[in-house]
This record gives sequence, C-alpha cells and structure tokens, in this order.
Amino acid sequence: MTDYLPAVLKALDDSREPALKRLFEVLRIPSISTDPSYKDSCRATAEWCVNTLREIGFDAGLRESVGHPIVVAHDGPRSAAGKPHVLFYGHYDVQPPDPLDLWVSSPFEPRLAVEPGNGEVVVARGAEDSKGQFSTFLESFRAWKRVAGELPFRVTVVIEGEEECGAHSLSRFLAEHGEEITCDLALICDTVQWDKDTPGITLSMRGIVGAEVVLTGPNRDLHSGQFGGAALNPIRALVHILAGLHDGDGRVTVPGFYDGIPTLSTERRRQLESLGFDAAAFLSDIGLSRPAGEKGYSALEQLWVRPTCEFNGVTGGYQGVGVKTVIPSKASAKLTCRLVPGQDPQQILDSLEKFIRGRAPKDCSIEFRADDGGYPAFAFDPESPHVAAAAKALEEEWGRPAALMGAGGSVPIVASFNQKLGMDCLLIGFGLDDSRIHSPNEKYNLTSFYKGARSWARIIDHLARLS
Amino acid sequence: MTDYLPAVLKALDDSREPALKRLFEVLRIPSISTDPSYKDSCRATAEWCVNTLREIGFDAGLRESVGHPIVVAHDGPRSAAGKPHVLFYGHYDVQPPDPLDLWVSSPFEPRLAVEPGNGEVVVARGAEDSKGQFSTFLESFRAWKRVAGELPFRVTVVIEGEEECGAHSLSRFLAEHGEEITCDLALICDTVQWDKDTPGITLSMRGIVGAEVVLTGPNRDLHSGQFGGAALNPIRALVHILAGLHDGDGRVTVPGFYDGIPTLSTERRRQLESLGFDAAAFLSDIGLSRPAGEKGYSALEQLWVRPTCEFNGVTGGYQGVGVKTVIPSKASAKLTCRLVPGQDPQQILDSLEKFIRGRAPKDCSIEFRADDGGYPAFAFDPESPHVAAAAKALEEEWGRPAALMGAGGSVPIVASFNQKLGMDCLLIGFGLDDSRIHSPNEKYNLTSFYKGARSWARIIDHLARLS
Repeated sequence: MTDYLPAVLKALDDSREPALKRLFEVLRIPSISTDPSYKDSCRATAEWCVNTLREIGFDAGLRESVGHPIVVAHDGPRSAAGKPHVLFYGHYDVQPPDPLDLWVSSPFEPRLAVEPGNGEVVVARGAEDSKGQFSTFLESFRAWKRVAGELPFRVTVVIEGEEECGAHSLSRFLAEHGEEITCDLALICDTVQWDKDTPGITLSMRGIVGAEVVLTGPNRDLHSGQFGGAALNPIRALVHILAGLHDGDGRVTVPGFYDGIPTLSTERRRQLESLGFDAAAFLSDIGLSRPAGEKGYSALEQLWVRPTCEFNGVTGGYQGVGVKTVIPSKASAKLTCRLVPGQDPQQILDSLEKFIRGRAPKDCSIEFRADDGGYPAFAFDPESPHVAAAAKALEEEWGRPAALMGAGGSVPIVASFNQKLGMDCLLIGFGLDDSRIHSPNEKYNLTSFYKGARSWARIIDHLARLS
Repeated sequence: MTDYLPAVLKALDDSREPALKRLFEVLRIPSISTDPSYKDSCRATAEWCVNTLREIGFDAGLRESVGHPIVVAHDGPRSAAGKPHVLFYGHYDVQPPDPLDLWVSSPFEPRLAVEPGNGEVVVARGAEDSKGQFSTFLESFRAWKRVAGELPFRVTVVIEGEEECGAHSLSRFLAEHGEEITCDLALICDTVQWDKDTPGITLSMRGIVGAEVVLTGPNRDLHSGQFGGAALNPIRALVHILAGLHDGDGRVTVPGFYDGIPTLSTERRRQLESLGFDAAAFLSDIGLSRPAGEKGYSALEQLWVRPTCEFNGVTGGYQGVGVKTVIPSKASAKLTCRLVPGQDPQQILDSLEKFIRGRAPKDCSIEFRADDGGYPAFAFDPESPHVAAAAKALEEEWGRPAALMGAGGSVPIVASFNQKLGMDCLLIGFGLDDSRIHSPNEKYNLTSFYKGARSWARIIDHLARLS
C-alpha cells in the first residue's frame, strides 16, 4: 500500500487557512436543535454538511426524520476487499447560547482569541461541541482524497442534528435503516483529550438508569399546628429513605447493587494511577476538597469505574420565600444511578424500587416511576487491534502516549452502535475540559483542530494497515 | 349585684332575627386583608364595627396603622372599682375565597342552609372566621346594655384587620399604645368548641420556631456523569442531616430538645383521655391510619402537649418534568418546631443549629436562617378563677361540662397579650372543626352563633361575680 500519509499531513498543514474558513462558515449557522424557531437553521447546517461532503467526493444526502434531518454520506475505494468499513459520527446541532449577556462576542460570529495556556482558540457556540470536532475528520478526508484520490477503506459518515436536544430521530433511523450504516468500527468524535498536550481514547463510559420517587402521606396539605405530631410527614419519610441509600463509607446499600461488577484489575488500576490525575485540582475547581464517593477508591475510580446513586432533585412542601407551616401531602425525589460494566440496568431499577418500597412507612403510598432510556455501561478492550492502531497513530502525532481514559457520563449513541448494530466503537475526540461547552464563550483550541485533523489522517492510515 | 342575666338571655333570644341580619350585613363586605384591591372593603368593615359598637354604646374608633385600621372601643360602668377590666379580641378580616368555582353560592352573599348533623348554618366567607365569632360577643354586649344599661365591668374591644395576612400592625400598636388596651383578662374568640354540642376552653397552645437550612456543596451545578461519584451532592448531605433529626421512636434527637418540659401530670393525662378523642376518625379524615409522632403518647398528646420538629419544605436540584442529570450546588429545607411549655424558643433554635452544623460534611457550607417571629408555648392554669367562672358559665349554657382543650397551633396575639402586656387570657370560641374555614363554603352553625352570644352573657355575669 502506497504511503500517502506524509503528503496527506502536508496537505493538511498547507490548508489550515481554508480549513479554518470552512469551520467559521458552519459555526455561523445557529443550529439550535431544541428551539423550533431554529428549524431552518438546523436544515441549513445539515445541507452545509451534505455540500461539504459532496465537495470532498462523498455520496452524501439527507435522511428526513420527524425532527431535524440526518446527514449520511458514503465513500471508499473501488476495491475495499479485506478492509474495514468505518463509520464516523458527529452532530451538527448545538446548545442554546443563553445566557447571551455573558458572551464576550456574538455566539454565532466566530472569532479567534488567544488564551493563556491554550494559545489560539476559536470562540463560538459549537466551536468544540461538535462542529470543530467533526470538522477534524472532514478535513482529514479532504486531504486524503486530494492526495490519494480515494480513502483507503470504505467510510460512512453520520452527522445527526438532535444530539443536544435528546430527541430520538437517530435511534429511530438506526432501528429502521441500520443496515445502511452498519460498519465494522464506529469512530465517535465527541469526547475530550486527556489534556491539551496529551491525546486520549475513551475506553469506557458509565451507563445510567433513573427514577422518580413520589411519596404521598396525608390526602391533602395540612396545617402543621393542627396536625403536626400525629400526622405523617412525607418529607420525613422521604429523607429517611434517601438517607438509607448510602452507608457511612459512601457505598450504596441497595442489596445486589454491586453484583456482577468485576474487581478492578491491577493492570487497569495501575494504568489509571499512571495518568497522574490531579484530584485536588479537579475538586478545587468545583469548590470541593475531598472525593465524596466510596471509601477505598481514588477520585478517578469513583468517576470512571464505580457506580453511583445520585439525587438529582428533591421537592416537597413549601418552596417559596418565608415560612408556611404546612405538612405537605407529597414529597418526591429524582434519582439516577450511573452504572458500570457488570450491572444490569433493569435489575438495578428493580432492586432500587424494592429497597425504597420496603422502607416506606405504612401510611405512605409510593409511586416509583422509572425513566425511559436507561442503558448499560460499556467498556472496550484496551488490547483490541483498533485501539492499538489508534493509540499508535495518536502517539505519533502528539509525541506522547494516548491516555486510555474512561468517562463518567455517557454518549447514548454508543450503546446503539455497539449493542444494537454490533459495531466496535472508538471514542476519540480533541475536546478539552476547559472548553466551556454548553456555556458562554465556548472555544476550541486551534491545536485541537489542526492536530485533530492530522490525528485522523494517521488513524485512517493505521487502520488501513491493520488487515 | 342585680341579677340581670335571665333578662339578658331573653333579650338575646328575642333578637335572633336582627342579630342574624347584622351578621349578614358584615359578611357582605369582602374584607380580604391580603389583597390590596380590597383595602377599601377592609376599611368599610372596620367602620361597620365602629358604628355597631357606637350603636351599642361603646366609645369606639379606628386606630390607623400602616396596614388596615384597628377597631378599638371602650365601655364600662361609671364605677368599676374592684371589678376586672376585660378585653375582647376578634378580627374582621377574612381569607381570600379562592377557589371561587368550588363555592355553591357567592362567598360574600351569605345564605342559610341546613346541614345534616349541624342543622341551620350560615354559609359565607368569614361566617365563622371570624365575623360570626366576634358577633357573638357584640350581641351579648348589646343585650346586656339594653337590659342593664351598662356592662358589669370595664370592657375594651379590639378587632383587628390583619389576622389572616400575617401583618404586624397590631403588634406595633400594642408596642406603642399597649397601655390603652391592657386589661386584667383577655377573652379571645377565635377558637373551636370540642364538638357541636360541647363547649370548650383552650388552655394551651404550642409555640413555634422555624428556620431554613441551606447547604452548598459544589460551587456550581454539575453534570452527574462528569462529576458523579467524586463530587459531594448536597441533597445527599441534606437528607442525611434531616433523617438524623428523629429516631426510630419518632423522638427528636437534638440534644436538649425536651429539656424543661414537665412530665404530663396524671390529672391532665386523665383529663385528655376523658375527652374521648377519636384518633382513628381524625386520621382517617386525612387519609392516614396511625399516629406518626412519639411512641408512648396518644394522638391527642402528640397534637397538643408534645413538641414537634416538622419539615415544611425541601428543595434541591431539578424540579421539572423528566430527567436532568445534575448534581446541584445547593439543597435546602424549611423546618418548624412546635413548642410546648418549658421549651425556650431561642435555646431550641440554638440546639437545632448546632446539631445541623455538626452533621454537615466538611465540604458543605451551611446557612442556618432562623425565622423571625417565633414565640413560646403557653398553658393557662386550669384551676384559675377565670377558667372556673367561664367553665361554669359554659356548662350552664350547654348542659355539659366544657372540655379543657389544648391546641396544636398558635394564635400569635395571645403571646403578645400574655407575655408582653401581662394579661391573663381565655380562649373561648364557638367554631367547629368541620366549618371549612379558609376553604370554600365556610359555614357557622346557628347554634354556635346564638348559644355563643348566650354563653358570653353568662361568662360576663360569672366574671362580674368573681371579685
């Protein structure tokens, strides 16, 4: 196989100016998916993606959905026998820019700025999440096609428009048209590097289940003078139940909660330690000083490889200013559990429900409303050839080994790609924790943008040599 | 002393029709104190009281305040040496009638209705609370004055207009002009009978202190995936603290909470038992089946003579529909403790604050905001001559002994009268628990109205014979 890589990398270096111009172009379209008044802008952004992919040489088009259209594109060499078929995933929609008054400049008028520590950055809504991120692979395709005439293996691109609004058009599309995009490997560019100088591959993500618990005591709100003492207070019942969910060591007390979770291997633990995570700095940034999770686990382990049971909301009685001497009829809480491999979402929900029902006082009725849309955790094999190839490519580009990372959160689409369509997945992104995604003045480091595109060129090259 | 009582009672019986007409008159004025658009109606009601009191023969007038005016009136015999000076207290303001669509007829167009068990009732906002109630003593004054020419001792009447809106005009008036209305005894007509056939004297009321507790963990709301596990969740810290406030027997665990509370005397316990309180019916009416308070105490004891620590509100994190995977920065709760005699409000607040602060995790900051306006409980001596006189009068009128009742709630003005102005107080009212005060279709039994006025005539007679 001809070694096109050096020329591809040179082409990327030579086209920084037009690449940045293209990124600015798409950043100017306000594709706020959650706000119906930006419907046309979302379509315009999808069309921009289609046109750009066609210009590069892809067979690209829109797939209509009940929501915003999905960009699907295919390309590949005339002969791809024995080569993998690789999916690249991104999303073109962005979060609303509010609060607008905290933006230094208009969120949809991208600009360059220099930030201490980060150097040059692009500032705009979507600069990182995820227009900057998907542009890294678009630019690498462009350079490959210009230099080599074709990509070294079949590539399918999916760029959806509802990642930020939690809509289900893509899931529905996958359920109905999954075969069109089922590949051997999905490359998902929506995650972060380890730090601005160190690339990362995210090998695990926690799953999630959630529920709302509503306790009803008295059949109406009561006067706390007239009834207080003899009448059951559902807030008291609720806090008693919630407080019982964790023991003094921060462990979840629900029977069976930890069943099936494999012990952390010495190798993985060593690997996590070797990352040199600065827990004190991480916590200090959010105003805290000590890891609040399970005793016996490091902060990074608590974040990536241990499950949680978290209270996301609690409500009951009088919420306004001042005093109201009420015993409320109801009190409720919203809970989510972050799951790790080995935990079965349904079994966790069942155990949680049983535990909570078992602790309600007799005069309290309980509604346990499980959320739709839970999904299990996943962890990919750090020894897989795909990981090895990507790690090698990233190390060559960045001059230091890629961190084998975990993530505490979830990219739901991974569950679909992996568990429903059976694709191996690699999560490689060039975002940074300080990029203010979802917040005012979102930025993307130019290093991430340029070296990200170069990284994809190298990853494509390495994957092509695998088989 | 001439025995005017039989003639006074006959005068009351003979004037039922005009008395009811007068009650209807004042019920027609919508004196909703909390709503500024009813300011003129409130003043018109106050003026109705002044005119009525003048018509009866009182020296009556308005005392202006920052809020609604206070009605103050004086009367008494030319020679009152050796006689008590007695205050009668009522309020002319009413609760808003909302929700209006649940009223069978217009709330300010009083009507007579017949209710199973209650017989004839007046239906209107304020019918019981408290225009019906204060009309009972106005009618008894009218009859006394007509028959005897004068009342047998000096009487001062205070009818305020801000009882239902928690405003402080009367407290301010007492602080500045307390001497004008300081009497030997205050008769407060704003409470209930034991049941529709049994009169009651309320001898104790619980006090109250309250606070809001605000816990702050992280310096901002966090993503529960990105931070969950390592980051302290203030809802978790809060429910842990709140759950620790009661033990398994329903006792408050705050050290010193029960200090100073005298053991319930065998006599008082027997007295309470003799009332034959139907706890099952009381609880069943609010959808409950068992007393939720301290083990070892009856429901009535839990309601009247034992203190509570009650959660009136709890708030934290996401309150809306659906799921938000947030670890909130803050969580808070509103608490009030109902106090009994022996408990010092400030000491209870201090102990509560110390307890709560002592249970907060290190990374959690706590704001403890004590409410203004706490006040201690009070209990009057069941053996006092005033109680004995009133009890005798009530028994003569109703043909059965007056129940010596307690109350779980509070009438704040009693604390001012008793503790600031040093007056003995007697709480005697003719309300009933089923009268729907503060609710649609409020009613007042005609028996309460007519026999209430007769009861006051008898009480005045008995008090006049005391000295």
